[in-house]
Amino acid sequence: MISFISFFYEGGLHVGCVSENKTYELPHKDMRECIESGFDCSEKKEIRGIDYKLKAPLMPPKIIGLGWNYAEHNKELKSSDSKPIVFLKPPTSVIGPNEAIILPRISNQVEHEIELGIVIGKKGKHVDSPEALEYVAGYTIILDITARDLQWEARKKGDPWDICKGLDSFAPIGPCIVPKEYVPDPGNLAMELKVNGQTKQKSNTKEMIKKPPEIVSYISGYMTLDIGDVIASGTPSGVGPIKDGDVIDSEIEKIGSMRNYAINE
Amino acid sequence: MISFISFFYEGGLHVGCVSENKTYELPHKDMRECIESGFDCSEKKEIRGIDYKLKAPLMPPKIIGLGWNYAEHNKELKSSDSKPIVFLKPPTSVIGPNEAIILPRISNQVEHEIELGIVIGKKGKHVDSPEALEYVAGYTIILDITARDLQWEARKKGDPWDICKGLDSFAPIGPCIVPKEYVPDPGNLAMELKVNGQTKQKSNTKEMIKKPPEIVSYISGYMTLDIGDVIASGTPSGVGPIKDGDVIDSEIEKIGSMRNYAINE
Repeated sequence: MISFISFFYEGGLHVGCVSENKTYELPHKDMRECIESGFDCSEKKEIRGIDYKLKAPLMPPKIIGLGWNYAEHNKELKSSDSKPIVFLKPPTSVIGPNEAIILPRISNQVEHEIELGIVIGKKGKHVDSPEALEYVAGYTIILDITARDLQWEARKKGDPWDICKGLDSFAPIGPCIVPKEYVPDPGNLAMELKVNGQTKQKSNTKEMIKKPPEIVSYISGYMTLDIGDVIASGTPSGVGPIKDGDVIDSEIEKIGSMRNYAINE
Repeated sequence: MISFISFFYEGGLHVGCVSENKTYELPHKDMRECIESGFDCSEKKEIRGIDYKLKAPLMPPKIIGLGWNYAEHNKELKSSDSKPIVFLKPPTSVIGPNEAIILPRISNQVEHEIELGIVIGKKGKHVDSPEALEYVAGYTIILDITARDLQWEARKKGDPWDICKGLDSFAPIGPCIVPKEYVPDPGNLAMELKVNGQTKQKSNTKEMIKKPPEIVSYISGYMTLDIGDVIASGTPSGVGPIKDGDVIDSEIEKIGSMRNYAINE
């Protein structure tokens, strides 16, 4: 298994890969170029003894969230929608592993949502479901952090969701991208999120209402998918608040684990 | 007056400027770099006799829309919100001058909304209103094309607005960016949108509820503003449907005019 990362050292952002506990630097100028090369590792160079800082594996042109894609979660949030809904998160919401989720002054109820992130590898519109995985480069973990109080207010008033979903630091992504070849069944991956060591969300992507190929097809019916776009594919039940000082650990089978911290603004 | 453009020729996208009816190419690799240079024109090179195609002047990292910022428009759309709302439009919604607005099969009511586009020139969060114009690079025209039927449905159900506002081609931007030095009062600009030569929206930015400095301050209270971000500052009354074959002409004082076409998907 090889996974792909972005990391910071010597004043610059680099793309690399991790294989059998060794870390390599790659010559690609960014993750988009790495994806476009088909995750080419032919010029990898091992890095050792360097203190680098892992960053979000990529800065997606757009992040598209899918809401209401796990039945148990739909019940806990009282959704009456008959089909999953679609929203955006802006680039300024992206943070990486070990980075802080900032709890903004304007919300008293910021909640965690662990989700499988689908990373797009090929531009496409109106993609058919059977061929949709051709448009996928790989998978990552994304937390769809949500100011739940602002979301309830928006839902009540019929207002946009872009503030409650799009505040700074509300999209931790990481720790890596795993190419789809190593994730033969994205519709059957165990996932778990812990707050301060205590399990809060524990499910499996097989609980999804729309499965990854259908998700890609569904969203591409609305918006052209671009290389490097990330789809947050919905969260299972168990969402709940995070507070100043909390440690959030997220893990998805075959992808890896990521730790983040919550701090007050 | 100098305005800044992006244009396509010889297989590549170039940045340039227009001054006294002459067009120049600039060495900046993209508009973001041009903005960061303070619109530096010291190495401009006149281009003549070249058949170039004007494009959207920039590809914003994020487009932030402001809703309910003109009292007359709020009445026509029955808004009961006490303050402007905030939404996003994705990069795949951006088109340029003379390009086609695609009327998607999923909507029967796509409407025009002309808006002053505020182009951000400096990264900022929680910016105070009196100093907010320091964070502005210049101004452009942006059309906040909206699938009104899908928006009514979203408002009724409490669903996100990102589909009705974010479909492909729903953010025509252009024809240029005019640096703020040439727009000393962005709160007093005549604006007009015509469909097939007939005036549909005719107003002035002085009808805005929040003025440009307040808008920048307001949005920066939610999301970090980044260089090249564009704020669509709300539309005046007169919004209405566009149909296959329609020609849409938009004009804002001191900025310029832009033509777009509507075509069925």
